[in-house]
Amino acid sequence: MLNIAMAQMKVSPGHPDKNAERMLQMIAEAKQKKADVIIFPEMCIPGYLLGDTWEQPAFLRDCESYGADIIRAAEGIVILFGNVAIDWEKKNNDGRVRKYNALFCAQNGRLIAPDNMPYPFIIKTLLPNYREFDDTRHFFSLQKLAREIGTTAERLLSPLTLDIHGERYRIGGLLCEDGWSDDYSLTPLTELNRHHDIDFFVNISASPYTLGKNEKRNRVFGAEAKAAHTPLFYVNNIGLQNNGKTIYTFDGSSTVYNANGRVISVCPAYEETLCCTELAHIDALPEVTQEHAPSIAHIYRALTYGIREFLAGIHMKKVVIGISGGIDSAVAAALYAKIISPENLLLVNMPSVFNSKTTRSLSEQLAENLGCQYMIVPIQESVDLTKEQLETLPVTNLADKSAHHLHVSSFVMENIQARDRSARVLAGAAAAFGGGFTCNANKAETTVGYSTLYGDQSGFLAALADLWKHQVYELAHYLNDTIYAREVIPQGIIDIVPSAELSSAQNVDEGKGDPIRYPYHDYLFRSFIERWQKATPEDLLTWYTQGTVEENLGCSPGLVQKYFPTAQAFIEDLERWWNLFSGMAIAKRIQAPPILAVSRRAYGFDHREAQDGPYYTRKYRELKAKLLYHSDTLPTGASPSF
Amino acid sequence: MLNIAMAQMKVSPGHPDKNAERMLQMIAEAKQKKADVIIFPEMCIPGYLLGDTWEQPAFLRDCESYGADIIRAAEGIVILFGNVAIDWEKKNNDGRVRKYNALFCAQNGRLIAPDNMPYPFIIKTLLPNYREFDDTRHFFSLQKLAREIGTTAERLLSPLTLDIHGERYRIGGLLCEDGWSDDYSLTPLTELNRHHDIDFFVNISASPYTLGKNEKRNRVFGAEAKAAHTPLFYVNNIGLQNNGKTIYTFDGSSTVYNANGRVISVCPAYEETLCCTELAHIDALPEVTQEHAPSIAHIYRALTYGIREFLAGIHMKKVVIGISGGIDSAVAAALYAKIISPENLLLVNMPSVFNSKTTRSLSEQLAENLGCQYMIVPIQESVDLTKEQLETLPVTNLADKSAHHLHVSSFVMENIQARDRSARVLAGAAAAFGGGFTCNANKAETTVGYSTLYGDQSGFLAALADLWKHQVYELAHYLNDTIYAREVIPQGIIDIVPSAELSSAQNVDEGKGDPIRYPYHDYLFRSFIERWQKATPEDLLTWYTQGTVEENLGCSPGLVQKYFPTAQAFIEDLERWWNLFSGMAIAKRIQAPPILAVSRRAYGFDHREAQDGPYYTRKYRELKAKLLYHSDTLPTGASPSF
Repeated sequence: MLNIAMAQMKVSPGHPDKNAERMLQMIAEAKQKKADVIIFPEMCIPGYLLGDTWEQPAFLRDCESYGADIIRAAEGIVILFGNVAIDWEKKNNDGRVRKYNALFCAQNGRLIAPDNMPYPFIIKTLLPNYREFDDTRHFFSLQKLAREIGTTAERLLSPLTLDIHGERYRIGGLLCEDGWSDDYSLTPLTELNRHHDIDFFVNISASPYTLGKNEKRNRVFGAEAKAAHTPLFYVNNIGLQNNGKTIYTFDGSSTVYNANGRVISVCPAYEETLCCTELAHIDALPEVTQEHAPSIAHIYRALTYGIREFLAGIHMKKVVIGISGGIDSAVAAALYAKIISPENLLLVNMPSVFNSKTTRSLSEQLAENLGCQYMIVPIQESVDLTKEQLETLPVTNLADKSAHHLHVSSFVMENIQARDRSARVLAGAAAAFGGGFTCNANKAETTVGYSTLYGDQSGFLAALADLWKHQVYELAHYLNDTIYAREVIPQGIIDIVPSAELSSAQNVDEGKGDPIRYPYHDYLFRSFIERWQKATPEDLLTWYTQGTVEENLGCSPGLVQKYFPTAQAFIEDLERWWNLFSGMAIAKRIQAPPILAVSRRAYGFDHREAQDGPYYTRKYRELKAKLLYHSDTLPTGASPSF
Repeated sequence: MLNIAMAQMKVSPGHPDKNAERMLQMIAEAKQKKADVIIFPEMCIPGYLLGDTWEQPAFLRDCESYGADIIRAAEGIVILFGNVAIDWEKKNNDGRVRKYNALFCAQNGRLIAPDNMPYPFIIKTLLPNYREFDDTRHFFSLQKLAREIGTTAERLLSPLTLDIHGERYRIGGLLCEDGWSDDYSLTPLTELNRHHDIDFFVNISASPYTLGKNEKRNRVFGAEAKAAHTPLFYVNNIGLQNNGKTIYTFDGSSTVYNANGRVISVCPAYEETLCCTELAHIDALPEVTQEHAPSIAHIYRALTYGIREFLAGIHMKKVVIGISGGIDSAVAAALYAKIISPENLLLVNMPSVFNSKTTRSLSEQLAENLGCQYMIVPIQESVDLTKEQLETLPVTNLADKSAHHLHVSSFVMENIQARDRSARVLAGAAAAFGGGFTCNANKAETTVGYSTLYGDQSGFLAALADLWKHQVYELAHYLNDTIYAREVIPQGIIDIVPSAELSSAQNVDEGKGDPIRYPYHDYLFRSFIERWQKATPEDLLTWYTQGTVEENLGCSPGLVQKYFPTAQAFIEDLERWWNLFSGMAIAKRIQAPPILAVSRRAYGFDHREAQDGPYYTRKYRELKAKLLYHSDTLPTGASPSF
């Protein structure tokens, strides 16, 4: 009989003291539950996404010191845990001290070394170095170590052999990416299984939540357990970790797979749990029926968890939200109202002459429905003052002492309004209220920079910036229908045309609004960032000539014909947004607030970008010439972009 | 006789069309100069720092297509150039197509394969993955390839063998990091030299400029050439490349090292050059005397080049600078005035009631000296309006319909002023003027977030944010003494106490100003970020107990005693700044403008960070307890931080 406890703990990144303290509590709890083995997640002492904190030797020593506390606690219980392992005698390729992402196993107060490993810990074999992951920046992989000491990773991969209650157990230890080996030439689990008689596998992970990942993991890990005909314990942490610009929730969802690859136990998402399983009983346990909630329910859960934890992490208790009567700010308000109490939530409506009675009254209705704090701060006076100062105060040319004046165009006035709302009113109100103000941008706006820098793009957190506009609407319905079970977001806000209301050209009562046609552009923009093979205008024009645009983008059929009667109209639209996406929008994203990630690809550290200006490939220009001029090359003088 | 041309070209990152066009021009020029071989820099077709543009298959095909143009141009001349090499049949570890950072060699319109390489190109062996470098994220190294095909990198490393004018030459081809092998277990140049008779080495690079790097490269590369007793041609590009948040200048400084490791030719920094050298004459050529300009001259050159190229890259011709009468904005104004014409440079002074006559008149004097456009926009009226609106407009509690009011404290008023200047006045003036406005923050302020978000921290570029305060002063002197050879920056600005002038507590006429004591804090802050082994409070307290703080920081002796009469004072100061550096300042840096890098470690993509809150190691807390309470642990109830 072997009672195995999965410790789905909440890891505080960068705080080994807190993490070790929590681990000691969970170890005590596991002992009470008569567990023989307790398994903690990857990097549970230091945390995982820490930026370059790994370059502080004092931090590394501290991780070692708390790791030693955990090893000492391994009396009457076997403890498996993740930590950074340091070889102070060796160097990484950056010249800094050698660091491994390691799995430690302690019994009777000392470390158990894997059978063929030159160190008393298991070293992560596969180091992810894509999306938000930077493992190779800091850690030395098992393959690199193998090459250095003149052997192979296959030979070093070996089980932990333990005697527990007089029985011998062989544990196959893996770290996170080791289980996701599809694109690597080496599959650690298969190698371990080929050469050794493994009783059970353990995969300790620090795996950020993204939509659909758990289903994929169950397929991948289930297949591995089944192929090896050996149970697999997947232990993941909960909590929030970030890389500065991009913030990830960790949902835990620690899982036991039996030797047939079936899921027989799952820890609740986003909850700290100590879950015990009798190894001998695994094959007799029934398969767990997986929850089949809609995607938007998962997104709601990730967002509320993420916002709550982020607020706690920065010790922010009060929040100000600028509400316009539009959908994004309404959804943000309804979300935050589930997280902080009404007396700590202040909604601010900031009308100018361009704001309709419709949206002003919808704003008020929303605030009423939420029963929180509400304030109306008109901006016209301040905006007028700014225009007047800029246009009447003289600009002196000091070369000849001549004076002239600036002219404030209506486009400049639009941005002046947006900045007045955020940088003047909201920032001031938030500081006076004792909190921060939110950025309510969605992912479509973020993609093309349809926002004003220091205006509606600012805030302490962009909680909706990884949701496409259609997901924001889905979330509105989900909030009304399921979470609140009443119409907190007035139907008028859902029905109204999306508009910035910054000029008379954006009059909602006349049905005028954003230039973005979300049913098509949401999907076009998604192809620029979320496709594993990123789409560019060349791909779009290729699909256009094939008549497969909607199919490739995943939007409703017929939209291309509906919106773009001619090839020229299609190309003008494509170049307009591509120029923004790869031009001004990058400059704006560089200064954007942190983004809460839920998708397979979020802006920020997950999707790295350089401010290089838009680019069109040669093939694109050829396709365009064919479509517009029925020629193989552009005619002389024809500009490649509109 | 072999005439070798080093093509120190300006690379436009992300624009293969422009780069290939420029290469064809330089190839034609090289032919006119009777060159037999022309060498282009690393990744000269795609550019090097491109973020995740490498994930666009259309972009990769485009790079191949332009590469084919260059190969076809290799008639009557041998062309060596850098480009991405793609194996469409294989995968990287992220599941995307296989990409190598490669050196191609073309002769008679076709590629020449290295002797033992399975591809017709040389693959970069050592892939840097520290600081701003992300090579392993996108490229497969020679070692990984060797392991995949069951051989070793040592065996694959082999020369390009060429017949030119009936003579046989063996070229040892290296890419950038391959020449910086100190911290790797493999030295490509040594391996090549051990097994082959090499006539000359070529190192094609895309090596960003940082202060002192060229001197280090001459030591490292010179020693390698000498050890191999073989000449080495180092070819680097010029231009500007960025990773979004951090912007790098590339200075070229392409260099020929003779077989004794002496520098016998250097291309001018930051200039596009085609520099020809007769291989047979190399040993007869005299050593080049290296320039010994002061560091600040190098910094000035990098900054002006970087600003000029950045403005050109974003097509910005007009610039607005808010000038306060302080040193940072004055240095920014004097720098920009060397780059853009006086009619396109608008200086704006924005006094409130707290701005002294002293600084207002110094601002005007500076503008007069530069002879540019000047405008005074008072902010008091707007700031008063904001305060009045926030304090008098009711906040309604919609739960019970009660009303209350916000209170705007004097601290909140400080930030309201700063935001009013930047987000209201400067952003509006810049838009009306048709340009952007600058961020004038220095590195000390950036380290501890001594700035206001959406206030003085905003702008399109933070050109001084990689300079410590003492370097800003050095630059002021250099501008007056050497560049302008007259007092463009009034001495009063250099002499005045640094102050934000946001409250009466910061009255410059009473000598009151910033809480940062730059002669000490510049160096303290530097230790947090620029030391290869980053310092933390634990290191500082250790040095304090040893009496070696100044020695370790590199600041003037005696400062610790002068500023901090007691251990408690030292610790209070240390924790104050560490809390900011690892707390609020990170939140501010996430939303900061792009930073022009000149140091060995700049903020942004070069120094990655997570918003995790400040942390103090166990050892730190023990040292602190000893110093404050002469005890091994903190007394019960004693807070670990002030």
